[in-house]
Amino acid sequence: MAEGDAQNEVTAGFLVIGDEILSGRTKDKNIGFLADYLTAIGIDLCEVRIVPDIRERIVEAVNELRARYTYIFTSGGIGPTHDDITADSIAAAFGVSIDVDPRARAILEAHYPPGQLTPARLRMARIPDGADLIENPVSKAPGFRIGNVHVMAGVPSIMQAMVDSIAPTLKTGAKMLSRTVDADLPESRLAERLAEIQQAFPETLIGSYPRTTDGRFTTQVVIRCRNEDSLERATSTVEEAVRQALA
Amino acid sequence: MAEGDAQNEVTAGFLVIGDEILSGRTKDKNIGFLADYLTAIGIDLCEVRIVPDIRERIVEAVNELRARYTYIFTSGGIGPTHDDITADSIAAAFGVSIDVDPRARAILEAHYPPGQLTPARLRMARIPDGADLIENPVSKAPGFRIGNVHVMAGVPSIMQAMVDSIAPTLKTGAKMLSRTVDADLPESRLAERLAEIQQAFPETLIGSYPRTTDGRFTTQVVIRCRNEDSLERATSTVEEAVRQALA
Repeated sequence: MAEGDAQNEVTAGFLVIGDEILSGRTKDKNIGFLADYLTAIGIDLCEVRIVPDIRERIVEAVNELRARYTYIFTSGGIGPTHDDITADSIAAAFGVSIDVDPRARAILEAHYPPGQLTPARLRMARIPDGADLIENPVSKAPGFRIGNVHVMAGVPSIMQAMVDSIAPTLKTGAKMLSRTVDADLPESRLAERLAEIQQAFPETLIGSYPRTTDGRFTTQVVIRCRNEDSLERATSTVEEAVRQALA
Repeated sequence: MAEGDAQNEVTAGFLVIGDEILSGRTKDKNIGFLADYLTAIGIDLCEVRIVPDIRERIVEAVNELRARYTYIFTSGGIGPTHDDITADSIAAAFGVSIDVDPRARAILEAHYPPGQLTPARLRMARIPDGADLIENPVSKAPGFRIGNVHVMAGVPSIMQAMVDSIAPTLKTGAKMLSRTVDADLPESRLAERLAEIQQAFPETLIGSYPRTTDGRFTTQVVIRCRNEDSLERATSTVEEAVRQALA
């Protein structure tokens, strides 16, 4: 897994905010979505954290992650209720003020019937000073970007729409390519050869993933590399190792 | 969400280790399982991190989390292949040596046919000095506990069996009770009353979770509390607020 911000590597951290994920009440669906999405556009997701709706914990995590990766994404905690404290926490993390944003207010005013933009709903227009809005085509209340941090809703359909609207603004790296080799063997029977192949192809990342198939232990070997030629040569070598182990 | 280690509060952090989760290739199933399990036995899961198979990143996360919570759990990276570096990383985090453990070796020797305990498989018997083993009824290679850190497999069926074998050894807190109130309203129409109710019942945690139901925005309100009486009174107050908002 690539880290830092070396040539052609664009990195990301993802912060999931919400007591409901940590209690088990809600099963997160955003991590897998964002992981797939970023991989597809050539951004390496390097770390995920899930933290509760506690201001100090959000501030700490945002500040640690934003210093470390090219981009940070957050999900959760930008609704109208008292437990939605993400926007205020992000403002605190950046040391900027926060208030109702005229652009966000205009979006909500256009969306709700006259007189329906209650104080609670207006909370959703609170945006840290200096942030850009992220469009929410689903339920209108916007997310926002400040610095390298992209703040999105937790509801998966809204979060996914926000990722779509952010994606064209992101710098993307050389895409990580991958090949998968399925081996009808427990991974312990491949382990020594895979270690040798990893050493022989240091520009690749070779992962070995045990699974159970029809009650047998089998293995998926995934070879990842940014260079097509190296990827093909390493994959052929793994395939040959699997054939030999099965022979 | 409770933090720290105050009276009757037992806290936990969960560290998921593996490139395959961050690339999206494997969708994590362990976070939701462990969140539900710990909630059920009265332990507060306070933070989750997902990190790649990079030693420094594992060491850093383990050391930060183990200083902060009563218990740490990890999943992933304890198999026989070159990318399984969790045990060595945990030893490094604790500053202890690591070698093939006679107890773990005996388990593997009893499991594999004579001559089949290859050097790769023997890697799975590498256990940090001073650790206790965690039984693996599924595929035998054990996990381990060192200090407050419980190191488990990433394959969900094995991880779940390991949690079952650990659970009786854990100190558990007063169980967090919860009630759910479904409201056929967007959460913005409840937000002001919920904030007031949260203030009136500071011993409870009131969460508001927007969702879409048949294309409408609806809300689940979850009231959590360790005290049954407070929980019931707060829940009744929320139910009354929903009735008034619908009227």
